[in-house]
Amino acid sequence: MSADIAGRSGPFDDLRTLLDDLPGPDEEARAATRARDLSLTKPPGSLGRLEGIAEWLAAWQGRTPPRVKNAMVAVFAGNHGVVAQGVAAYPQAVTAQMVANFQAGGAAINQLCESFGLGLQVFELALEVPTGDIAVEPALSPRDCVATLLYGLESVPTDIDLLCIGEMGIGNTTVAAAIFHGLYGGTAEEWVGPGTGSAGDVLKRKVGAVSRAVELHKAHLSDPLEVLRRLGGREIAAMAGLIIAARLQRVPVVVDGFVTTAAAAVVYAMDPAGLDHCLFAHVSAEAGHRRGLETMNKEPLLDFGMRLGEGSGAALAAGIVKAAAEMHSGMATFADAGVAEKGGD
Amino acid sequence: MSADIAGRSGPFDDLRTLLDDLPGPDEEARAATRARDLSLTKPPGSLGRLEGIAEWLAAWQGRTPPRVKNAMVAVFAGNHGVVAQGVAAYPQAVTAQMVANFQAGGAAINQLCESFGLGLQVFELALEVPTGDIAVEPALSPRDCVATLLYGLESVPTDIDLLCIGEMGIGNTTVAAAIFHGLYGGTAEEWVGPGTGSAGDVLKRKVGAVSRAVELHKAHLSDPLEVLRRLGGREIAAMAGLIIAARLQRVPVVVDGFVTTAAAAVVYAMDPAGLDHCLFAHVSAEAGHRRGLETMNKEPLLDFGMRLGEGSGAALAAGIVKAAAEMHSGMATFADAGVAEKGGD
Repeated sequence: MSADIAGRSGPFDDLRTLLDDLPGPDEEARAATRARDLSLTKPPGSLGRLEGIAEWLAAWQGRTPPRVKNAMVAVFAGNHGVVAQGVAAYPQAVTAQMVANFQAGGAAINQLCESFGLGLQVFELALEVPTGDIAVEPALSPRDCVATLLYGLESVPTDIDLLCIGEMGIGNTTVAAAIFHGLYGGTAEEWVGPGTGSAGDVLKRKVGAVSRAVELHKAHLSDPLEVLRRLGGREIAAMAGLIIAARLQRVPVVVDGFVTTAAAAVVYAMDPAGLDHCLFAHVSAEAGHRRGLETMNKEPLLDFGMRLGEGSGAALAAGIVKAAAEMHSGMATFADAGVAEKGGD
Repeated sequence: MSADIAGRSGPFDDLRTLLDDLPGPDEEARAATRARDLSLTKPPGSLGRLEGIAEWLAAWQGRTPPRVKNAMVAVFAGNHGVVAQGVAAYPQAVTAQMVANFQAGGAAINQLCESFGLGLQVFELALEVPTGDIAVEPALSPRDCVATLLYGLESVPTDIDLLCIGEMGIGNTTVAAAIFHGLYGGTAEEWVGPGTGSAGDVLKRKVGAVSRAVELHKAHLSDPLEVLRRLGGREIAAMAGLIIAARLQRVPVVVDGFVTTAAAAVVYAMDPAGLDHCLFAHVSAEAGHRRGLETMNKEPLLDFGMRLGEGSGAALAAGIVKAAAEMHSGMATFADAGVAEKGGD
């Protein structure tokens, strides 16, 4: 099977078929949630975006009232050959060290999951076999890319009602910038930021690597799955698969930062409605993230200048999504509480 | 005691003395928190605003690491004579009905307190005796204003480490707009918004009432405490007192929306550093709120288009503040976790 024709035949066919038949929102559940919202003891519209979140949950869970009792953060970790270009501020060994830190409960995401009552599952993707260096070769073979997408597709935890997606991988903001540049054009400079802290020469090498990677693969970038395969990485392919699988299983998704959004952008490029079940948790300090969200017309919930990854922004947003669901289902109606409705005085 | 000289003598003297001697931040606790932050298993700065929140907590609690184990929402309810001007979308009886709803656990704030593990205390301020109609007379007598400020000063719950402040009161967005207009000038239109849902003629009457009130009292508005007394209300005076009391007791404060921010603005007008222990939870849908925050150079944490009051925005923000504290105190250091620090590759 030739890599050159991967976009037009063979390896990705099953995935394309899935995307042709994605389920839509449950408009009845959405309307019932909106109707209940109007009966609650508050002025209509006064909870602002939280009301929209309750409706979004209902529409994509297919349930009214919506419920967030079992929310989970899934963190995908991968390693990247592009670190050979000197693009990262930390050594590659940190990816595995941080996975150990997640497992030991010492990372930021562990504390956030504890704070908001979220489960945590960490998926370690062949850390000992970094992907190809995108500046000189495709990141993944067609077989590897398909296998990793399928791995993601199989990774929706059972019985959850909200899924937060995040990642860890030294070098992966370089790869994410390459994906955005490959999908949406512009210049490498517009998509590359400091990531975990690249500055000066490291940042210059990062821009150079992204620029060379997109130039090298440019003949194949009209197919978003080829962008993923050539410019992506394992955690990014798995997250793209997971986003699609969550849609099929009626689990709303909270997308974390720049790298996770790059995975979502691959899905969006295949089908702009393919992310309608996703909430974008925050806009990170990485300038390319704001640009990517704007390109996809996605309005992030939070703007805290975060740039950690690990699902940290998604976990914070999940706390708010849970609260929105709990308010919607727990509040008294005007009739219950004997509160007068609007129109008096 | 004459109201005309209230600003320069008598009734407010004790309060002015308190403000002359407000405690500052604990810079040692702040520095220790910053130092610990740099040792945690994440790139420096990567938690963005959450890092600043941990430092702010430490500085104003005077404790390192900062702790949010016992956070409380205090909601103050009052009634307003200005509703006689036809400025409100709901009847005045709703204030007491909503207080009953808070007590029964049916309001938005009850669900938020449950979601984030916050305590809730409701302070009902003589609802059966609305304040004077600010369009034709002062809201409060000097004695009443001082008594209510002192009530607020005495209202810090014991043993708490974070205090969220919110309110309920039909007509109080009119009063809040008058306070901002009285303190910071501009036009009534610039400060008045729909509140709980005023539109059309109601909104016009609201602008007219605020305009007439500020015109009527204009000779007395150079003293922020006279602005509070003449254009304010009981819940606003109590919240101003509470903000000051929390500072004295080293309890950081989370300020809710437009009306709560009007109470804070009175303190700010007396001493711009008097709000340094306060975090502004969100910017509401009320246009005057954004303007007020900008005037005081305060950067709100959230922007969800909320306009409910009740401390609802403050409770959401408190969930994030708690998480920031828990991350700071719970995360492993690089040394603990055996993670390599920056500089490799």
